[in-house]
Amino acid sequence: MELEISKDFIENIEQLILNKNDDALLLLLAEEHPADIAEIIDLLNLDRATYLFKLLDSEKTAEALMEIDEDDREKILKNLSAEEIADEIDELDTDDAADIIAELPQERMTEVISEIEDKAHAKDIVELLQYEEGTAGSLMAKELIKVKESWKIPTCIKKIRSQAQEVSRVHSIYVVDNNDILIGRLSLKDLLVSKDDVDISDIYIPKVDTVNVTDDVEDVARIMQKYDLEAIPVIDDDKKLLGRITIDDIVDVIKEEAEKDYQMAAGLTDDVEADDSIFELVKARLPWLVLGLFGGLAAASIMGGFEDALLKFPELFFFTPLIAAMAGNVGVQSSAIIVQGLANDNIRGSMLNRLFKEIGLSLVNGIFLAMLIFVFGAFLNYNINISITIAISLVIVIIIASLIGTFVPLILDKKGIDPAVATGPFITTSNDIFGIFIFFFIAKIILGF
Amino acid sequence: MELEISKDFIENIEQLILNKNDDALLLLLAEEHPADIAEIIDLLNLDRATYLFKLLDSEKTAEALMEIDEDDREKILKNLSAEEIADEIDELDTDDAADIIAELPQERMTEVISEIEDKAHAKDIVELLQYEEGTAGSLMAKELIKVKESWKIPTCIKKIRSQAQEVSRVHSIYVVDNNDILIGRLSLKDLLVSKDDVDISDIYIPKVDTVNVTDDVEDVARIMQKYDLEAIPVIDDDKKLLGRITIDDIVDVIKEEAEKDYQMAAGLTDDVEADDSIFELVKARLPWLVLGLFGGLAAASIMGGFEDALLKFPELFFFTPLIAAMAGNVGVQSSAIIVQGLANDNIRGSMLNRLFKEIGLSLVNGIFLAMLIFVFGAFLNYNINISITIAISLVIVIIIASLIGTFVPLILDKKGIDPAVATGPFITTSNDIFGIFIFFFIAKIILGF
Repeated sequence: MELEISKDFIENIEQLILNKNDDALLLLLAEEHPADIAEIIDLLNLDRATYLFKLLDSEKTAEALMEIDEDDREKILKNLSAEEIADEIDELDTDDAADIIAELPQERMTEVISEIEDKAHAKDIVELLQYEEGTAGSLMAKELIKVKESWKIPTCIKKIRSQAQEVSRVHSIYVVDNNDILIGRLSLKDLLVSKDDVDISDIYIPKVDTVNVTDDVEDVARIMQKYDLEAIPVIDDDKKLLGRITIDDIVDVIKEEAEKDYQMAAGLTDDVEADDSIFELVKARLPWLVLGLFGGLAAASIMGGFEDALLKFPELFFFTPLIAAMAGNVGVQSSAIIVQGLANDNIRGSMLNRLFKEIGLSLVNGIFLAMLIFVFGAFLNYNINISITIAISLVIVIIIASLIGTFVPLILDKKGIDPAVATGPFITTSNDIFGIFIFFFIAKIILGF
Repeated sequence: MELEISKDFIENIEQLILNKNDDALLLLLAEEHPADIAEIIDLLNLDRATYLFKLLDSEKTAEALMEIDEDDREKILKNLSAEEIADEIDELDTDDAADIIAELPQERMTEVISEIEDKAHAKDIVELLQYEEGTAGSLMAKELIKVKESWKIPTCIKKIRSQAQEVSRVHSIYVVDNNDILIGRLSLKDLLVSKDDVDISDIYIPKVDTVNVTDDVEDVARIMQKYDLEAIPVIDDDKKLLGRITIDDIVDVIKEEAEKDYQMAAGLTDDVEADDSIFELVKARLPWLVLGLFGGLAAASIMGGFEDALLKFPELFFFTPLIAAMAGNVGVQSSAIIVQGLANDNIRGSMLNRLFKEIGLSLVNGIFLAMLIFVFGAFLNYNINISITIAISLVIVIIIASLIGTFVPLILDKKGIDPAVATGPFITTSNDIFGIFIFFFIAKIILGF
């Protein structure tokens, strides 16, 4: 059912734009979903994208605007007048509208808001702009369906009908008192199933999950997932109903959160995409590479300190990358398990249990790998003491690397720091250094250089 | 609004179970959400969990069963009779019911199905069990609301009311012909807004997004996200309406997919959690560590082949871990960007453009890092030729590592292989080996040993 956007299709559109054949363009795109329009706009150059954008109905382009890549959106909006932007804003729900407006420069922001025709809509958007990013307030929409406890069913149905025109998805009907204090909900299903002569006070459900407007969006996501909610009302400290968060906004939060953990583990400081500019990509990638470089310089210094062993035991130097790599791999594995566990809230049991478990696990893995080292050493006629040194070091390095990978994120989390910073380059670099130091230290004891 | 499950609370429950104080337990847990019940059960030992499970109403425990950790669920189900399990199943929607039954051993599965009281429910579950894991069929529920095109509005409302009793969330009303072929949909909102005297044929929307029962769940997730759908009907090749997938099931798919990419990048072969057994954790972690070990052995062999340089240029060996680490870091960064880009379907532009961009990016990063090497070398009075060797090697290694990190996942994806396998240990290990080889090769040319 999805539109396949072929090269031919785009070329056709480009040709129609070139010929200013507006009727054909409108006909061609009449049935397309805004998400597909957004994809087409992403593939056109700026001038053509702007042309198409101005040509199409704002009902269609407004939704498309939400789906376009942020960089492209900024450029297109620069080409539109404040009035044209306000037309788009008029078509959007308040949460999406506020997101778009928040991306504008301050001056243009005021101008666009003043051009919005529906003044109630403008007022709602201004309210939403005040909430701090990352809070429930920044994610909620003002559109919702609410009925007053004091209403009778016929009034209720009439009011719901008029409110439903504004709300793209109904989900729940909230019940408030005369001061807009949330006291319960009506499920749509109950409304469908109930007979017409029933009173609201008889059918409303007083138990309703809520979040506070200042709650963290990640907590909102966790609660909505845990209780399988498709929408949740947002209230203030007085329980006044302020807005509503729906699951489609939460899907983005969940996805971004999971992706962010991976990005940090991969040594990317920003949320970069393959199509970002080289400058943005450098900014996201270079800092962690510099950290890795300093780690490598530290490793070089450590090895330089053991230069005496170079002549008698060159194999030690050949095996250093192996030790470093294993320390890094083990650390990354352990930290990934902990970071995902913390994100999913399923890290249970005491620190002491975890300590024993990690040591047990590392012993199993380490001893298996140490045996492979012996086989390899026998095969290549290594000095048995060299094999013993490498094998023992490997087991100890694996144990220490897994403990660092496990407990550094756990401790950061306890201190309220995002544990994901401790994955990736941080863990590989520090484990490299520890690993190499331990390796040479043990070698010095066993081989006595 | 979330229940805080304190240690005291659990101890209280344990005490009540010990005293077989059923009334107090039922009273204490009467108002709790099934998700909270699940959390409590996860924290009890098996005997107590089973006791509580049998005590509580199956309406509550059935939903809780879905939320319990899979391992715990298996153990609890072992302690229940087929009839008791069937009671739970009777309370669940068909998709959840099929998931639970699919986890049972074959023999018990048949037994439980025969004990299900609602035979239509049992038949639906048996149908769902036939669909292959990972397809739309395996994710859909049979519960949905459908009306026939030929019905008049009063029949429609009556039928919807009776169907709505069975469906936990309404979302859309599907319109079918007399052969159950999907021909359109009614939005609930339209139903709310429409007057009572309107005909179905006048208000149904013939355009409806669908997925085929054999479609991959990841494609279903992509379509539902792209078009912002909260539910999508599932049809067969004849367009017969078979079931419905809702966004809450898709949330899990999206999350698991993002987490899986990270796990593969971290060198974990299975979806393991911190609380899994040591055996499961070893199984997930050891294979990639063995790969890393072989990589390290290969690196050792390469370095052994350049043993002649050991005396004259020991610094080369001290800097090998740095080169290997940088190659690994750069490869992981590049592959993470590509894998996330492919997952989000935003990798655009030609391969050639991407090639130039990666080279440009790597030159910027590489030259900056090379300058740091010079500064460090000057500081420690390194032979200038050594600094030049390290610097040039670093730039070349960064370019090659970023190209491997970029193009290996892209090529795998083109060949229909999950690109995530090329992140993590695979990329770090191969980049280590390439990096070390290139480093010594360049050193041999510049330093001439």
